[in-house]
Amino acid sequence: MEPPATEPGLLDLGRDAAALTAQLVDIPSVSGTEKPLADAVFEALGTLPWLRVDRYGNNVVARTEFGHDQRVVLAGHLDTVPIADNVPSRLDEDGVLWGCGTSDMKSGVAVQLRVAATVPRPNRDLTFVFYDNEEVEAHRNGLGHLAAAHPDWLAGDFAVLLEPSSGEVEGGCQGTLRVQLRLPGQRAHSARGWMGSNAIHAAAPVLARLADYRPRRPVIDGLEYREGLNAVRVEGGVAGNVIPDECVVTVNYRYAPDLDEAAAVAHVHEVFDGCGVAEFVVTDHSPGALPGLTHPAARAFIEAVGGEPRPKFGWTDVSRFSALGVPAVNYGPGDPNLAHKRDERVETELILRCEERLRRWLSGPAAA
Amino acid sequence: MEPPATEPGLLDLGRDAAALTAQLVDIPSVSGTEKPLADAVFEALGTLPWLRVDRYGNNVVARTEFGHDQRVVLAGHLDTVPIADNVPSRLDEDGVLWGCGTSDMKSGVAVQLRVAATVPRPNRDLTFVFYDNEEVEAHRNGLGHLAAAHPDWLAGDFAVLLEPSSGEVEGGCQGTLRVQLRLPGQRAHSARGWMGSNAIHAAAPVLARLADYRPRRPVIDGLEYREGLNAVRVEGGVAGNVIPDECVVTVNYRYAPDLDEAAAVAHVHEVFDGCGVAEFVVTDHSPGALPGLTHPAARAFIEAVGGEPRPKFGWTDVSRFSALGVPAVNYGPGDPNLAHKRDERVETELILRCEERLRRWLSGPAAA
Repeated sequence: MEPPATEPGLLDLGRDAAALTAQLVDIPSVSGTEKPLADAVFEALGTLPWLRVDRYGNNVVARTEFGHDQRVVLAGHLDTVPIADNVPSRLDEDGVLWGCGTSDMKSGVAVQLRVAATVPRPNRDLTFVFYDNEEVEAHRNGLGHLAAAHPDWLAGDFAVLLEPSSGEVEGGCQGTLRVQLRLPGQRAHSARGWMGSNAIHAAAPVLARLADYRPRRPVIDGLEYREGLNAVRVEGGVAGNVIPDECVVTVNYRYAPDLDEAAAVAHVHEVFDGCGVAEFVVTDHSPGALPGLTHPAARAFIEAVGGEPRPKFGWTDVSRFSALGVPAVNYGPGDPNLAHKRDERVETELILRCEERLRRWLSGPAAA
Repeated sequence: MEPPATEPGLLDLGRDAAALTAQLVDIPSVSGTEKPLADAVFEALGTLPWLRVDRYGNNVVARTEFGHDQRVVLAGHLDTVPIADNVPSRLDEDGVLWGCGTSDMKSGVAVQLRVAATVPRPNRDLTFVFYDNEEVEAHRNGLGHLAAAHPDWLAGDFAVLLEPSSGEVEGGCQGTLRVQLRLPGQRAHSARGWMGSNAIHAAAPVLARLADYRPRRPVIDGLEYREGLNAVRVEGGVAGNVIPDECVVTVNYRYAPDLDEAAAVAHVHEVFDGCGVAEFVVTDHSPGALPGLTHPAARAFIEAVGGEPRPKFGWTDVSRFSALGVPAVNYGPGDPNLAHKRDERVETELILRCEERLRRWLSGPAAA
């Protein structure tokens, strides 16, 4: 699908966040093709005199500079997964908006834009971050690029990432570690198997440990996390008549944010101690993020938006804020279970509720 | 490498089997390109008036028709694995002939041709079989095609397959069965692993059974066979963040020829009973062949060639003769450990010894 040409004033920040979500969905922005949408966001924010707007590639950052004691960051990614015949958006009679990115996360971006446009005198300084390439490989992630090039643009006391969370607060996130466990063997013709040593058979104790593994469920800041240690791939075999000399089991350890990276790696080594693993290769590692719910800004936020905070099991970019020393939570109107689906959709009522609750939190008397 | 044009009289059956082996190696005949060599063999045999020579594709069968009570079949394949910069052949000062197919099995074919040419009045009727495509997929095998189209051409009381066996008699062969064992699971995001069921973990008991398996070593016709049950492949995994819903372990059962095909399949089912295997899929099955060493022709053969018969662990085309009711053994000058190697070679002394011993067995007074 060709993206429509962007025109001046394409985004109407005077409409509510639900209507704005539809406008955003109708500007396709599959990862790597965010420029038209980044242009539109940059231009729309540029009309708001209380914001300083900066741009780095297709990443846009807008900030108030009132000199408040506290600064809150509202962040969201502009990109979507590939369109699956679900653009333009469609609003049905039940108030449900359908289309690619409705849930993940143009409804969240619409809420950001509406808060930016409608809270000219916030009670805390505000930073709005819009970034690209969240749905693809980590090294392309725009928030990562901003953190490396302009960490000062991301500074703050507390961050809200408007990823889909069904309008509930999700605190922190678990870490994710992938490790390849290599089991050795010795090749031989399978007609004379006793001449060799079977690496696939050697994986038996590894799989047994995995099958018997009992994950932790630690409680952190009042949230119960659920860890998991799973084989996500197993590969071994040379040919149908050869005793294989290598078998590789790739495990994914999802760990609660009370463990740091080194402790997570040590745990995996410990679990498979004595299993004959010849080599542990870490292929991928993203640390968790503590929920940070004890911070005053976080408390005020939770009080304002209501509900009971939940732990976030999946890894999200809150971890990038955490690494910058900014406690962060997920809070957005989309439904995470509908993300990336052909029938992706969002309830417009939930968008409006998020918009209203964030506005309530950030308006009124200045925070201490 | 271009095969040289075949010329009339290319093969000189008046030279010994070692010199003839070099001639055969120098006519390339990688599987599927056997025609020039089949032409040369067909033509050379056509000059021997005591033979009736038939041809089916690139398969050549030559028979005496003296009306003896016994008929012995000498069989060999014409093709080789791909040439690896090891043609033409080269004879070194130690009497070792180097080159593609020297061992597997143009030295055996040379012995066949020499017996055909130098035993005009054999003590048993003789059948010489030369066939194509042994080194590739079973369905292309020329002996299989002959068995289907002209089983009468292959009739006999005893067969010797001149596959490399280092000049020792190898009786019968083991069967080989491949079965895919499918373990089921249920997909889920690995951040919420408890929502799914891990198929790779479900393979733990299968690998444990394999690791603990104690193969049989039955004695048949005085030969001790050694079975084996091995995983030759394991595959599972969807993506790095997904609990996999399928894991497939492919096992290869090499079984002694006292088991028939049904018993072999039943054994595999029995071994993995209670392991949670959802599906057993037989992907490949070639039955074994009994050594048949009690047959009078076999006894006379063993007496003539000397040495102690050994069991054959690998599967060979003797099984195809066995299926036709013809007991068969492997006996050839090549070294099976050098087959398919770049430095493939054969000791010319062993070629000459094989030639001489077969000639001795098939000459002299007619068998009872």
